[in-house]
Amino acid sequence: VSDASSPHPPSAISRARLEVLFDGIFAIAMTLLVLELKVPDLADRHSVQELATALRHDGPTFGSYLLSFWMLGMLWYRHNQMYRHIERISRRMLVLQLFQLALAAFFPFCAGLEGRYPMNPLALVVYSGCITLYGWTSLLYWTVAWRVGAIRPELGRAEYLALRQRNIRGVIVLTGICGYSLYMMASRA
Amino acid sequence: VSDASSPHPPSAISRARLEVLFDGIFAIAMTLLVLELKVPDLADRHSVQELATALRHDGPTFGSYLLSFWMLGMLWYRHNQMYRHIERISRRMLVLQLFQLALAAFFPFCAGLEGRYPMNPLALVVYSGCITLYGWTSLLYWTVAWRVGAIRPELGRAEYLALRQRNIRGVIVLTGICGYSLYMMASRA
Amino acid sequence: VSDASSPHPPSAISRARLEVLFDGIFAIAMTLLVLELKVPDLADRHSVQELATALRHDGPTFGSYLLSFWMLGMLWYRHNQMYRHIERISRRMLVLQLFQLALAAFFPFCAGLEGRYPMNPLALVVYSGCITLYGWTSLLYWTVAWRVGAIRPELGRAEYLALRQRNIRGVIVLTGICGYSLYMMASRA
Amino acid sequence: VSDASSPHPPSAISRARLEVLFDGIFAIAMTLLVLELKVPDLADRHSVQELATALRHDGPTFGSYLLSFWMLGMLWYRHNQMYRHIERISRRMLVLQLFQLALAAFFPFCAGLEGRYPMNPLALVVYSGCITLYGWTSLLYWTVAWRVGAIRPELGRAEYLALRQRNIRGVIVLTGICGYSLYMMASRA
Repeated sequence: VSDASSPHPPSAISRARLEVLFDGIFAIAMTLLVLELKVPDLADRHSVQELATALRHDGPTFGSYLLSFWMLGMLWYRHNQMYRHIERISRRMLVLQLFQLALAAFFPFCAGLEGRYPMNPLALVVYSGCITLYGWTSLLYWTVAWRVGAIRPELGRAEYLALRQRNIRGVIVLTGICGYSLYMMASRA
Repeated sequence: VSDASSPHPPSAISRARLEVLFDGIFAIAMTLLVLELKVPDLADRHSVQELATALRHDGPTFGSYLLSFWMLGMLWYRHNQMYRHIERISRRMLVLQLFQLALAAFFPFCAGLEGRYPMNPLALVVYSGCITLYGWTSLLYWTVAWRVGAIRPELGRAEYLALRQRNIRGVIVLTGICGYSLYMMASRA
Repeated sequence: VSDASSPHPPSAISRARLEVLFDGIFAIAMTLLVLELKVPDLADRHSVQELATALRHDGPTFGSYLLSFWMLGMLWYRHNQMYRHIERISRRMLVLQLFQLALAAFFPFCAGLEGRYPMNPLALVVYSGCITLYGWTSLLYWTVAWRVGAIRPELGRAEYLALRQRNIRGVIVLTGICGYSLYMMASRA
Repeated sequence: VSDASSPHPPSAISRARLEVLFDGIFAIAMTLLVLELKVPDLADRHSVQELATALRHDGPTFGSYLLSFWMLGMLWYRHNQMYRHIERISRRMLVLQLFQLALAAFFPFCAGLEGRYPMNPLALVVYSGCITLYGWTSLLYWTVAWRVGAIRPELGRAEYLALRQRNIRGVIVLTGICGYSLYMMASRA
């Protein structure tokens, strides 16, 4: 509430440090994705065929790795696009940002689940649900930032709305995927 | 002792680099929390119900994950609030800071313990004990910083005391929780 | 396509932040390499000989660790050499960069595979294939950067070509090693 | 060789980026130390006594954790002390620096070994050997930096020698500990 009382209250947190925390958590989450890929145990250590079979068997996990790396990369890119217009961070914005980071750090678990059980609809629900929740939080963050006047004055209302529109489109797609996977799961059970 | 002899001895360490180390360790600790969440082993890879049961069974670990992420986020935020008033870092302050970082890096272990044994009072003692110790160290850090004149002159004595007061309040709450969990443990044994 | 339409379109991403993500992912990948080295289980905890045997048995993994650390260090160094001439990052360049980072983050898995199965030709194919792909992407990145005018104007065409030439030489060596390991694998099967 | 030919050749690498890589690897190595501490498996999830016994049993690992965190913190601090006088980084210096980082990233493995087998003299040899090697590399780095003129001109010869002297003293202590542990191991076998 107090955020909106004055046009320029001090930033709750240093912009630069939140950036470092954000980039750090994304870098770590992206690198931890690979920990789901386990070096297989082979009976014959020299057998090309056995190793090939083991790696092929982990195929979905590799696919999930690449997809998830790309996903986190995109979320990181989108965050950059918006964050450059943010001038200061209110407390409410910090709370939303921390929640986004918790979802990003949680993502390697979702990727591991999806990579191991690609045919289990619940795994897809968890996976898409995590990104969808991230997308909604991102949209809320942007809206709150505008309302409390935390966006650089150079950004006009039209540009704000255009960026918001793009965000909404993304959220709709994500929610659609999440809803579809929920439907698939329900029709299976 | 020598810290207080001159009003402006050189900083023991570059402020910016300690910041990077601090933010880095917090980012990693926050992301490592998720490693306690293990992808469950399923008998039937396609079974929604089996996966749902397994995830529900990990419920306390998920709760502990979110709580612990929030905790570390708050400690990080509080550190920011104080650190922006610090001008230089004395050796004694560096020692305290490293001890704080050791506790923060130790936190994922506490969170794993609490998530796996939520009903075991000793797990809560370890968990709350780690944060309480962090809080006390933080209070000591702030007090030492004032005494050795490491705080920016812009910050008046009243503001210093107000921030210290808030710190003390936090430490009292934490010590209370820790004491209560010790009491619960003692009454159980 | 739109990248080339104007000589100075805005950068798709902040140069500084991509740098932090890049350095972060490399730092993490380099440190995660060590996770492949496991503390051995000993029957007699005090036996020097048993521990020595266990560590000697992990010899190839230690060798793979050092080699891989050096490899990532070199890739990081090479990236630095080129990146200092980059002025802005187009979207296509960002995509290539993310792909490079996915390969770098994937590298600890390759190192673990190679360390555990040093005599298995497929392990070497995966290992050298990952670096070779990285090298090709790096070359493509540099070429695209020149074409879309993302390189600092201070760098003349001759210098660009010289750096490109060095890159091509590296890629040829890597492709040779990769091809040789493929040949070795084929001749075995 | 070419490093010494000109008094001011360009830096092989951006000073700031090497700093980020250095701080990043140290932050990660310090946080990975905790991964050696495993949440114990309990027969009775509610038993305070069983958990207490399990944690007490891990006592040496906790001790090793704290000691190793402190060690890495000190190495990091010492690096800072010297690095602030470095103006540019030659290629030979970069190679030494990467070797130092490989040893730092290797340190969590040594700490895990020492924590699990505190009574095994070989574990202490590996542990102290890793730090001793780091110390020698650091001394070599500093000496090379002086010889190739990579140190800021503000630092006089006397100050250089004083810092070097302190470095030598540290290396002598470390080599002594390492030699003693080697002697203990030899007298046991």
